[in-house]
Amino acid sequence: MKRTPFDKWPCSVARTVDLLGDWWTPLVLREASYGVTRFDDFVTSLRIGRNVLTQRLNRLVEEGLLDKVPYQERPVRYEYRLTEKGEDFFPVLAAMVRWGDKWMSGDEGPPILLRHTTCGHTTHAEVVCAECREPLDRRHVRPELGPGFPQRLREKAGELPRFAGGAADPATGSGG
Amino acid sequence: MKRTPFDKWPCSVARTVDLLGDWWTPLVLREASYGVTRFDDFVTSLRIGRNVLTQRLNRLVEEGLLDKVPYQERPVRYEYRLTEKGEDFFPVLAAMVRWGDKWMSGDEGPPILLRHTTCGHTTHAEVVCAECREPLDRRHVRPELGPGFPQRLREKAGELPRFAGGAADPATGSGG
Repeated sequence: MKRTPFDKWPCSVARTVDLLGDWWTPLVLREASYGVTRFDDFVTSLRIGRNVLTQRLNRLVEEGLLDKVPYQERPVRYEYRLTEKGEDFFPVLAAMVRWGDKWMSGDEGPPILLRHTTCGHTTHAEVVCAECREPLDRRHVRPELGPGFPQRLREKAGELPRFAGGAADPATGSGG
Repeated sequence: MKRTPFDKWPCSVARTVDLLGDWWTPLVLREASYGVTRFDDFVTSLRIGRNVLTQRLNRLVEEGLLDKVPYQERPVRYEYRLTEKGEDFFPVLAAMVRWGDKWMSGDEGPPILLRHTTCGHTTHAEVVCAECREPLDRRHVRPELGPGFPQRLREKAGELPRFAGGAADPATGSGG
């Protein structure tokens, strides 16, 4: 698949989308998050072509989101288990589900409900500030240059529209 | 762009990815969330081709995430402002940023920091259960059939691996 290589961009959204590659990948991760581990079960769930699925699974193994481990010896058969990095992607999916449920479900309501087994409720994801625990609203979030922003781009960063944009607080562009 | 049409799937992840279309779209939304509104500023920020940008912006206007409004009369020039639906996508991006910062940043740390202007802290997104406010871990989340799950697929839903998968609690497959 020809695409713009985003992985070198100083942006975690770009790096994440570069890793995912195409939209089958979040759906494979969704199934894995719901407990699916075996090749044929992914095929059944997603009605995905076997070649495409093989590519996506291999990519996720290479990138460290899935482990490929034998579950049977004669013949050897493998299953795909989420690593810690893969488990940790679930909140992104849950945030996506929430948005889709709210804005794309139409009158009939969400197709799938998520039950939080620890509290027992049917629930949805809420994205909060890790510091004050209030919901994150983009009008109250300001991007600043971080330690991983490339030195060679730092000088020009002040010219980036995002550091001079119309957020609630004027960004200085001078960085962190 | 040829792709599998996911929009009819009874899954909010699939519908969301179908809407986004390709990975430029979340990056356009990221810039919009950081306050960018004008065509040329999107071009400068993303180094995106003008044709591709036009397509993505039109798609986001069609889908109701952006409003195209004149900001100047002679000649008429337009800017792109997030609607409520578009504003509401920010938590998905913030969850993605958090995952990318944690798993894709390498030793140098995150390229961009997010300052939460209401509490003043440099922060990151945390995805919590809307009911009990605890972080959402996929091992404690169980998918169930929701009101919007298509009637014609309900009978077969019990055969879907995700409803018989290895989540912490055995799913019944009988639905909600």
